[in-house]
Amino acid sequence: MINQVCIRQATVEDAQAILSLIQELATFEREPESVVLTKEELVRDGFGEQPAFVCFVAEEDKQIIGMALGYPRYSTWKGKTMHLEDLIVQEQHRGKGVGFALYKRFIHYAASLRVKRIEWAVLDWNQSAIDFYEQTGAKVLSDWRTAQMGENEISHFINQYPDADI
Amino acid sequence: MINQVCIRQATVEDAQAILSLIQELATFEREPESVVLTKEELVRDGFGEQPAFVCFVAEEDKQIIGMALGYPRYSTWKGKTMHLEDLIVQEQHRGKGVGFALYKRFIHYAASLRVKRIEWAVLDWNQSAIDFYEQTGAKVLSDWRTAQMGENEISHFINQYPDADI
Repeated sequence: MINQVCIRQATVEDAQAILSLIQELATFEREPESVVLTKEELVRDGFGEQPAFVCFVAEEDKQIIGMALGYPRYSTWKGKTMHLEDLIVQEQHRGKGVGFALYKRFIHYAASLRVKRIEWAVLDWNQSAIDFYEQTGAKVLSDWRTAQMGENEISHFINQYPDADI
Repeated sequence: MINQVCIRQATVEDAQAILSLIQELATFEREPESVVLTKEELVRDGFGEQPAFVCFVAEEDKQIIGMALGYPRYSTWKGKTMHLEDLIVQEQHRGKGVGFALYKRFIHYAASLRVKRIEWAVLDWNQSAIDFYEQTGAKVLSDWRTAQMGENEISHFINQYPDADI
């Protein structure tokens, strides 16, 4: 059914296609203006000397139709872990197993690094995603919340507390 | 009030004290048996060629009484970010501003790296922590849940789907 789709590690030549997938998802989520990442930053951050992430892409007829992007994290209880930041499949290519193939590849990659855990975030109303993840053996935790300080809040905090020492 | 406390970057000599703090936090979070990380792994992962994390410690009278530990992450919308994994102060040393001093140092460190965001996780029943973070400008999100696949679940998944290709 998806014999013509190839899953492979992304190269710098895929940067524009990766950014397009990111923007497409943000637009679908009605937050197109939230993507401030540029292609140049993506290239610098992901395809230089010390890549900040690893990315796998799904390719069909020389078109990138999906991707799984993640990076290492660290658990002070367990040790080295991996985080799956984005798992994206273009809307018109969903339902063909491309997302699962990307998910599987990412898990195999993480297992090859012998990480102690893989983790990711899921929206609490996205029950079909939660069901899918649980069916594959993942636990979806209910008692943790995410706290974030954005660029503006960081600047504000630094201005308020300019001295890093006690 | 806390003039005698020094905040500094951790060295390999602090590994045992760091592990003790981690174990103390796990007990506070009602999961003392969940810490499987050994001192040797902590030393290897944090103080070798490519450290998996950065750690700041609070020292008083040559004793480590607290720490802030984090690592880089990546947002496909924003770019480079930092994650604060653990912010720990020994129970008997709380209420003296040590936690805030560690938090401040970590935010200054992240700001110096020009990251686009700092994020961390907080237990939803820890209202005093949530209040504190919000007072410092952080947003605490309510609609994201954390999904995790542990070592056993990864092995089980790999056995079930041994082929990484489509």
